[in-house]
Amino acid sequence: MIARKWLADKLLAIGHETTIDGIANVYGRAPSDGPVVLAGSHIESQNHAGWLDGALGVVYALEAARVAKESGVSGGVDVIAFADEEGHFSGASFLGSESFAGDVSEEVMDGSVCRSGRGRLRDLLADAGLAGRERVRIDTARYRAFFEAHIEQGQTLETEDLKIGVVTSIVAIWQYRITFTGIQNHAGTTKMAIRRDAGKALMGLWHRIEEEFPKISGPHSVWTVGHVALSPGQPSIIPGGAEMLVQFRDAEPATLDRLKAKLYELVKDAGEGPCTTTIEALGESKPAHMSEALQSTLIDAAKVHAPEKWLIMPSGAGHDAQVMAPLIPSAMMFVPSIGGISHHWTENTSDEDIAIGAQVFVDAIGRVMSGG
Amino acid sequence: MIARKWLADKLLAIGHETTIDGIANVYGRAPSDGPVVLAGSHIESQNHAGWLDGALGVVYALEAARVAKESGVSGGVDVIAFADEEGHFSGASFLGSESFAGDVSEEVMDGSVCRSGRGRLRDLLADAGLAGRERVRIDTARYRAFFEAHIEQGQTLETEDLKIGVVTSIVAIWQYRITFTGIQNHAGTTKMAIRRDAGKALMGLWHRIEEEFPKISGPHSVWTVGHVALSPGQPSIIPGGAEMLVQFRDAEPATLDRLKAKLYELVKDAGEGPCTTTIEALGESKPAHMSEALQSTLIDAAKVHAPEKWLIMPSGAGHDAQVMAPLIPSAMMFVPSIGGISHHWTENTSDEDIAIGAQVFVDAIGRVMSGG
Repeated sequence: MIARKWLADKLLAIGHETTIDGIANVYGRAPSDGPVVLAGSHIESQNHAGWLDGALGVVYALEAARVAKESGVSGGVDVIAFADEEGHFSGASFLGSESFAGDVSEEVMDGSVCRSGRGRLRDLLADAGLAGRERVRIDTARYRAFFEAHIEQGQTLETEDLKIGVVTSIVAIWQYRITFTGIQNHAGTTKMAIRRDAGKALMGLWHRIEEEFPKISGPHSVWTVGHVALSPGQPSIIPGGAEMLVQFRDAEPATLDRLKAKLYELVKDAGEGPCTTTIEALGESKPAHMSEALQSTLIDAAKVHAPEKWLIMPSGAGHDAQVMAPLIPSAMMFVPSIGGISHHWTENTSDEDIAIGAQVFVDAIGRVMSGG
Repeated sequence: MIARKWLADKLLAIGHETTIDGIANVYGRAPSDGPVVLAGSHIESQNHAGWLDGALGVVYALEAARVAKESGVSGGVDVIAFADEEGHFSGASFLGSESFAGDVSEEVMDGSVCRSGRGRLRDLLADAGLAGRERVRIDTARYRAFFEAHIEQGQTLETEDLKIGVVTSIVAIWQYRITFTGIQNHAGTTKMAIRRDAGKALMGLWHRIEEEFPKISGPHSVWTVGHVALSPGQPSIIPGGAEMLVQFRDAEPATLDRLKAKLYELVKDAGEGPCTTTIEALGESKPAHMSEALQSTLIDAAKVHAPEKWLIMPSGAGHDAQVMAPLIPSAMMFVPSIGGISHHWTENTSDEDIAIGAQVFVDAIGRVMSGG
């Protein structure tokens, strides 16, 4: 809330009509009837994380709004800082931007709870003094474009000594829980031949995934087994149950479909072994394609401020821009992450790269407002 | 303590000099100067476990002592119920029998704590009224033999419709912690080619173990991965750390050495991948061989009470008899476990099988006392 109030003060200072709304989105509306661009990102990051993930894009947006005001153009830049981009609360993947898009009902608000156990969203909003406030919804007719800047959170730009990533699309994330049910038994007295070891069944499927996915994945596909649990998880007990979370990401629907079909085929094969195997889809988001015209605008700006130091690339991480993209033409821009690190306090970008990013971002928005 | 006092009363009732000692072993000494056999097992089981694991062998021993008294033989049967066979407390694997064997120092007693977090062994013994009591040590010169009966905890006897297992040896348990260190990173923005995924490295080693161990194991070897943990264990984060516990059991030293050498070789191979891999031995117990003469005695008794319904077999589980075996000739006998289940409240053995087991056990001890 301190960061939100700081931002609201800065927006008020340049004449924006500003509110912290009923879901804690900070929204500053430029005093303009000309062409308006919406710009922003999020302030909150992961717990114990760094200083740039989200916040950098909000500060870039503030800078774009200031420049627009000082340049005296007829248009303006509205600024938004979306709440809970990281998914701290249940009910939606991008609670703040989805609320702004009109996709979060009052029932979802009522049921939303903190995933780290700090209680109900409604209560925490009330504690922050936001009870009863309206939630702002996007006025799509007002906007020519949405622009979001963000740290890359990967090493592509750094490795190739580049300064700007122009995002083509934000990948879809498809995620599945796979459970294995065998028979829990004594690890000393149960012969190998009659075991129904749920952990071993899990390992077998995981191995098959790592064998098969590289054969059918696309050039930008990524897949991860980030969570595994054996039950009861004791060294002298054959696991009777096991669970894994499998996630894959790609921007191409055909690739996503191919990976899913293979995963289901492998799960079916695994179920013909000694353990029962089930799969449950936890999420199958849609890839979001950024506006091609706005990509060109970003490239034009990058050619001025970072000549030959830019790249077009997909985003492997999810961002608020994917929620805006179906509503208004949207653009997304990356600056380098040192060592590719994010969601950690060592997350950083060089001062030089931060400045170059701001120049490209502000220049591109200026081109949109002037019809370029 | 209620069970211990019940047992002590029963032993006092047949004239045994009885004590609950300073580690909560119950020890009843027969009033005899003739040939004496020690018999017993343990009373405590796992938390929330069944009614036979341990307790059955203690009741068989009580019955053998009663029969010896009633038969008027010159010898007698001393009865012992060992504390903490299951390893609830730190400091030793078989705290009660190791204390009886003289292998538990006062320093180990001082440092021993409950693995379920209920506090220090010393405090809990004091709460039970046992503070300051001496711990009884075995008088090896007194005994011709130690006999222990136990449920099988496996399905070998049941599957082959047998009544008695004559144990040849109690297997050694060799256990290792293997840790993998990679780099924790974002599961969306980190390309597959540059990942150092500790979870995937763990899976690869596990797969190699399951491929290689069957080629070099013995006919009774068992191996188990009972515990696996990925760090931080989140679906959208590439695991930077991972840990697994690998355990194998066999009665043959050459087989144990072969499995260990292979495991270390596979760990070394795994360490040549993108993650650092280390292995730590958590325990490498010795197999305990039961007396061949006493095996013959058990077989002679089984031929009378369960003709053609007995089998010689190793024990895949650990038992107090392995602690007694280096000190005095020891024998171990199994009765069937329904469904092979143990350490669970559904653990059971049919009344008929319990009765047959008691007959074989008492008969075999009688043969030893009469010099047969």
